[in-house]
Amino acid sequence: MSLPKGYTIRRLQPSDYSKGVLKTLESLTTVGSISEPDFHKLVSHWNTVKDISGKYNIYNPLVILDESEVIVATGMIFIEEKIIHGLGLVGHIEDISVLSSQQGKKLGKFLIDELTRIGKEYGCYKIILDCDRKNVGFYEKCGYHEAGVEMQIRFESNKL
Amino acid sequence: MSLPKGYTIRRLQPSDYSKGVLKTLESLTTVGSISEPDFHKLVSHWNTVKDISGKYNIYNPLVILDESEVIVATGMIFIEEKIIHGLGLVGHIEDISVLSSQQGKKLGKFLIDELTRIGKEYGCYKIILDCDRKNVGFYEKCGYHEAGVEMQIRFESNKL
Repeated sequence: MSLPKGYTIRRLQPSDYSKGVLKTLESLTTVGSISEPDFHKLVSHWNTVKDISGKYNIYNPLVILDESEVIVATGMIFIEEKIIHGLGLVGHIEDISVLSSQQGKKLGKFLIDELTRIGKEYGCYKIILDCDRKNVGFYEKCGYHEAGVEMQIRFESNKL
Repeated sequence: MSLPKGYTIRRLQPSDYSKGVLKTLESLTTVGSISEPDFHKLVSHWNTVKDISGKYNIYNPLVILDESEVIVATGMIFIEEKIIHGLGLVGHIEDISVLSSQQGKKLGKFLIDELTRIGKEYGCYKIILDCDRKNVGFYEKCGYHEAGVEMQIRFESNKL
């Protein structure tokens, strides 16, 4: 499986603010007003959060760019370092978003495969993600299976 | 709601190896053989992983100790710093474990309430956790509601 001609995938960079990543995330959920310095600061911060060895990134945000260098898909895997399973690692896939105008090109599948590869190479004994019931079939095609129930609590006072 | 007399709750410390935390985690899942230096190193590492301000811990592991200073329950909330929701924060509750001999004292409820309080005070717009279907009722009593499906993929080669 490969990306459409001219498309590329790479780690999100602090300098990517004007490349469409926020617009892409807006097709997933509320993004809000984020300034370029604040964006730069967060993505730079992600680059400094390391695992116990000090070598590897905990936050691994990927972006897919089209032939015009516009970000059209994005997704994250972050790595949790646990006690259980012999100081085991668990990957959490979060914030998968593909521009609706880019549907049908299998960008989502490519992105999940890449994030999964990162988690596996990192040494995770499992990778988990939460999704709507309607997306279960998509993640099954990516090799995932249903494992439990996502529970949540929201704090409106803390919400944008 | 309060803990039984003589019981206390606090952050897990690197020096807690011999206080029963591994045995408590074994009632949840496989823990494996973890040496005291490796345990100390991981918990110390957790204490160094900070948020973007450099002030707050990303990993927040709690333990409940009985009147003999033995760890009888443990749980984690770690904080994910996102782009979405105006650089929003999401708390992830993980690895909730209560010694089976300590059931019926509402330690699990106390633990979840404390972890939830930490996430809320941190400023999380939501806290999420994954559980078995049979535990949905317990988490509903803690204020959580069903929000989606947990999907996972496992790598046996990376597993203890």
